[in-house]
Amino acid sequence: MANRNVLRVIKIGGNIIDHPDKTAFFLEQFAAIPGAKILVHGGGVLATQLAEQLNIPQTLIDGRRITDAETLRIAVMVYAGWVNKSMVAQLYALDCPAIGLCGADGDAIRAEKRPVRDIDYGLVGDVKKINVELFDAWLAKGLAPVVAPITHDGNGQLLNTNADTIAQEIAKSLSKAFKVELIFGFDKAGVLMQEDGVEKVIPQLNKKQFLALKAENVIHGGMIPKLENAFSALESGVNKIIIGNAVSINEMIRGEAGTSIEW
Amino acid sequence: MANRNVLRVIKIGGNIIDHPDKTAFFLEQFAAIPGAKILVHGGGVLATQLAEQLNIPQTLIDGRRITDAETLRIAVMVYAGWVNKSMVAQLYALDCPAIGLCGADGDAIRAEKRPVRDIDYGLVGDVKKINVELFDAWLAKGLAPVVAPITHDGNGQLLNTNADTIAQEIAKSLSKAFKVELIFGFDKAGVLMQEDGVEKVIPQLNKKQFLALKAENVIHGGMIPKLENAFSALESGVNKIIIGNAVSINEMIRGEAGTSIEW
Repeated sequence: MANRNVLRVIKIGGNIIDHPDKTAFFLEQFAAIPGAKILVHGGGVLATQLAEQLNIPQTLIDGRRITDAETLRIAVMVYAGWVNKSMVAQLYALDCPAIGLCGADGDAIRAEKRPVRDIDYGLVGDVKKINVELFDAWLAKGLAPVVAPITHDGNGQLLNTNADTIAQEIAKSLSKAFKVELIFGFDKAGVLMQEDGVEKVIPQLNKKQFLALKAENVIHGGMIPKLENAFSALESGVNKIIIGNAVSINEMIRGEAGTSIEW
Repeated sequence: MANRNVLRVIKIGGNIIDHPDKTAFFLEQFAAIPGAKILVHGGGVLATQLAEQLNIPQTLIDGRRITDAETLRIAVMVYAGWVNKSMVAQLYALDCPAIGLCGADGDAIRAEKRPVRDIDYGLVGDVKKINVELFDAWLAKGLAPVVAPITHDGNGQLLNTNADTIAQEIAKSLSKAFKVELIFGFDKAGVLMQEDGVEKVIPQLNKKQFLALKAENVIHGGMIPKLENAFSALESGVNKIIIGNAVSINEMIRGEAGTSIEW
């Protein structure tokens, strides 16, 4: 496996997508990354804004958005339509060949509607299968897939799907063919801790350190499932995971920014 | 060239897309077509409805819609987003592998902004180049490309583009590799003429007959540019053109419905 090529799977969210200037800056950095790369994007506030403009009420249960048919239509329009195609067009202007897709295209990402337990999340998908051959073929042609967080169930239903999960499942599925670096961009510079009253980024974090910092409540809240997912991806063959602010994507790749998660 | 495979390029417009029942019926017929096939779809009234809901004024000059930045955003959301992805998901439910795309994806359709002469149409594209290799590769894998009427200029700008033109340019560009049948679905059963006070479909129409019927004003209005484009496509290597109502797509292919345009 030593001669596997590096593949970088990069996930960006609202802190990039909601700001055209940051998107442009990020895409310049993304275009400059050498070798195989895949971009997975979330949605940001654009979909919420559109729902408000259209007076489509958004239902939140325990802080989680419920995807009804109208909300799904908006998510597909905004994520798989405007956000996805705008970024692909911008990448060509940066000489970065790219192909935009959602999970239905070429059956790239098959999912199933999340089973109803305590909460019915509506038209939300849990990823079942990544079409490795399809991604492989595009990467071999030098195309960067740009993936919108919409999947399908194979029975005609599109499903709203978490972009972090999509990035992780793609990274795991492609780790047989590639040495995969999975990079999560979010609104912080990395996993943070307080040191002498100053907030600083933890440059490296292994499982043992994570468990200790979690026990001390230094790492808490939404960062815990993010990191647990990261360690699970490492177990599934992903080579390296970096968490940080996607505006510093090249520094993160060079190990000069963000938090590297190691086993 | 005798052993070229048949490729069917089928264009559908508002009379199908605006009605979910007709879309479902059409997609069943489309899924059943054997061999290589490409679907090009227009937009229909969905984009206009969304613009109205969002209070985005639509400018018409001489009856032609002007695409400003907001109108383009809506076109991309509706055509390349909702309409495109819904149809791809539905095709998988019909066991028809498909891939949705707009012209930016994989640089499938490069266009340039229409030069301003009498009218500035805004962000409207004239097709410059079809990425034949990309369509070829998908067709070879048994995927049916589903094409939204949005292109790009290679400099980061998405462009609203006429779906008839896209279908025609794809048909022309792929006619070296395939025996191409180009099928235009619209709201009539074919090219019509009055006979003994009854409106009937002209089953076959060659250039000589067209010129005669045009001179007699039997064929007039919007049908004239449609047919002139059809004859121009035949000159450029397209094997056969059929015009009719896309709900009868299989009858059209069998020569039992619509108007076949011949040289």
